[in-house]
Amino acid sequence: MLKNLQNHINKNLAFLNESKILIAISGGIDSVVLTHLCHQLKLNIALAHCNFHLRGEESNGDEESVKQLAEQLGLEVFVQNFDTENYAKTNKQSIQIAARELRYNWFEDLANQLEFDYILTAHHVDDNLETFLINFTRGTGLEGLTGIPEVNTIFVRPLLPFSSEAIEHYAKVNTIAWRDDRSNASTKYVRNKLRHNLIPILKEINPSLLQSFQTTLSNLNDTTDLVKDSVDNLLSKAIVSQDDDKTVFKISEFKSLRNPKAYLFEVFKDYGFTEWNDVLNLLDAESGKQLFSATYRLIKNREHLLLSEINNETEENILISKEEKQIESPFGLLFFDEADAIFGKRTEVIYVDADTLEYPLILRKWEDGDFFHPLGMSGKKKISKYLKDEKLSLLDKEQVWVLCSNNAIVWVVNRRADNRFKVTENTKNILKITLQ
Amino acid sequence: MLKNLQNHINKNLAFLNESKILIAISGGIDSVVLTHLCHQLKLNIALAHCNFHLRGEESNGDEESVKQLAEQLGLEVFVQNFDTENYAKTNKQSIQIAARELRYNWFEDLANQLEFDYILTAHHVDDNLETFLINFTRGTGLEGLTGIPEVNTIFVRPLLPFSSEAIEHYAKVNTIAWRDDRSNASTKYVRNKLRHNLIPILKEINPSLLQSFQTTLSNLNDTTDLVKDSVDNLLSKAIVSQDDDKTVFKISEFKSLRNPKAYLFEVFKDYGFTEWNDVLNLLDAESGKQLFSATYRLIKNREHLLLSEINNETEENILISKEEKQIESPFGLLFFDEADAIFGKRTEVIYVDADTLEYPLILRKWEDGDFFHPLGMSGKKKISKYLKDEKLSLLDKEQVWVLCSNNAIVWVVNRRADNRFKVTENTKNILKITLQ
Repeated sequence: MLKNLQNHINKNLAFLNESKILIAISGGIDSVVLTHLCHQLKLNIALAHCNFHLRGEESNGDEESVKQLAEQLGLEVFVQNFDTENYAKTNKQSIQIAARELRYNWFEDLANQLEFDYILTAHHVDDNLETFLINFTRGTGLEGLTGIPEVNTIFVRPLLPFSSEAIEHYAKVNTIAWRDDRSNASTKYVRNKLRHNLIPILKEINPSLLQSFQTTLSNLNDTTDLVKDSVDNLLSKAIVSQDDDKTVFKISEFKSLRNPKAYLFEVFKDYGFTEWNDVLNLLDAESGKQLFSATYRLIKNREHLLLSEINNETEENILISKEEKQIESPFGLLFFDEADAIFGKRTEVIYVDADTLEYPLILRKWEDGDFFHPLGMSGKKKISKYLKDEKLSLLDKEQVWVLCSNNAIVWVVNRRADNRFKVTENTKNILKITLQ
Repeated sequence: MLKNLQNHINKNLAFLNESKILIAISGGIDSVVLTHLCHQLKLNIALAHCNFHLRGEESNGDEESVKQLAEQLGLEVFVQNFDTENYAKTNKQSIQIAARELRYNWFEDLANQLEFDYILTAHHVDDNLETFLINFTRGTGLEGLTGIPEVNTIFVRPLLPFSSEAIEHYAKVNTIAWRDDRSNASTKYVRNKLRHNLIPILKEINPSLLQSFQTTLSNLNDTTDLVKDSVDNLLSKAIVSQDDDKTVFKISEFKSLRNPKAYLFEVFKDYGFTEWNDVLNLLDAESGKQLFSATYRLIKNREHLLLSEINNETEENILISKEEKQIESPFGLLFFDEADAIFGKRTEVIYVDADTLEYPLILRKWEDGDFFHPLGMSGKKKISKYLKDEKLSLLDKEQVWVLCSNNAIVWVVNRRADNRFKVTENTKNILKITLQ
């Protein structure tokens, strides 16, 4: 196995030979054998062990055994203690998710701070097969059937082509000691069923199951590349604009496809959407129709779909006292300056009759029922009507703020001033309000 | 179930309501229930039963039960007897493959002759799951995981969304009689293992396994559409020319892809190739390098890949007597006419000094070592050298024929005449040879 791993690394993971490596070690057979193998291959390694304190003395025994192994092999070892149960409670997570989050965060911090290039984990092909089968039994798509990636950012899994049988064999032949690793407690039921009942049947049907499985994985990963090409090809045509706030997609490009739903899934799956028929129906929905995931919003706006993150900041009214000359607003800096005269006409600057204002001014989002007297027009107009006439998208509409004086709108910020506060020939003091 | 099937047909297979339908019936529970259901739904059906005579009296019992069912429901029934064992022996096939071939051929003939629009088979979701798992254990790709299609040419499988449990339930509630169907004898071992040992474990893990599986299938079929789009997109750029003999692909289009091998697989899988690394290496191989499947050949020719069917005709020399004025050759009609003079110069016509020829003339493919005296050149030239200088592809080279007189080449057909047989001022009789 040592020879095979060496060949595999030289052929596919040669960068490891020149890297500073951290091995994530639980004390279980897989990570212990990985450590021995890497040590034999004279890779530049150190060990990192998480003590999650989930199994009392056993957890401490694991930690102890890792420290002993480090001493035996003359390796540097980092150990971190976690109060996993509390962390899980605080974050309302399962113990497993919490442990995973703690573990990966700590590994990454450690790698960053101590300048490790890669973090190795000891996943093997049996892990991959179990994950495949778990995803399959739950119902999945191509993504759930392509296995754990061998290289993912700084995480590398060099044992992925090897079977647990080969790892066990190596441990026995080389009289390597390991600790029984029972950390996957919460998936234990399912994994045990797969490992002890189901996979043996598959192996009876095909004794070279693991090899066939590798072929399947390799084929499905090839297919993933073709899928990416199709999606890239679509996106290059469909994305009209993209900035921090939102991405705009041309609906016609989706509708001209052989299978629009399949593309909608690929394009929007990473934003938490799950109801793909609803997303599909959005293509033909009335303008203004919207869908929400936990974190994103998708709006139909005439010929386009607008994707934007849901802003979870609680936006409150901003009060502005007379003394304030400058405030920070969610949409930029606002300046309040005395002025001698009106210069030019720009939407981001208004001049008002300072004596018509009542403080504190209030800066808030517009609300249903708001109206104002647009500068230069006689009479009043509902803000909703005004914004509709300006052909704002639903999303843009929601980003509109108003500056109010005693409930009267002084300024639809950055868009239109109000007639009632304008500078007239009788004005004594001019206030210049600037958005920067 | 009747209601569900009706809904399913009306929603997805409405064309069945207006069609003349043949139900493929074995006498087993699935096809018997399908027949009852279609009869209840008042579809326009007839029955077709194959007696493969593989289980002696049991086979005849199946046939009898089908005939009784037809009588009971007042349906037309067609029965065909096959000597399956002999057919399998003659065609060197497994019994299973032979039965499948016989069955589908007969169904199609029957449908053609009697103008049935569709043939229904009784596959259900459990069949689909078993096929998925069989393919998975063997090692497969996306194609092996997308299930049996519900509609494929004239074959329709309306029970595909239903479980065998639902079918069995319907049979029991409606006291429908069926015959124990043991026809899948050769895959019995594997299917039984899956059905009785493996799938129950999967259902313990996820009681709604079949539903999840349908979701998986639907997702994977969506993915298939994306893959097709990628391949179509490539082919629209890569195919330079395509005719009955060969298809020419631009190699550079494959090499500019994210994953050339994945595309090579998709493009060439239907031509019997299996060694995808070899196909990949062909992109960078020397011009002239070729790969063979059982039925196709792929040749690298400078900047192109040439795909052509392997021609299994045994091509022999064609002898031409002096009396023959017209012969059929594999590449067209050849005319031998007396002529008075030489008109023009075209590659498909030559004029030779008739008295220099020795009969019978021989028409054959060129061979290594052949040489001729190209018309208008002094001295001789190897045919191989001549064809190379003409920059013919390997494939085109092999399609070159020569017309010989006593082993001397008179004409590289359709390309170049020989100096030794040309018409001179001393020529008395001119022979005009024309390729049409």
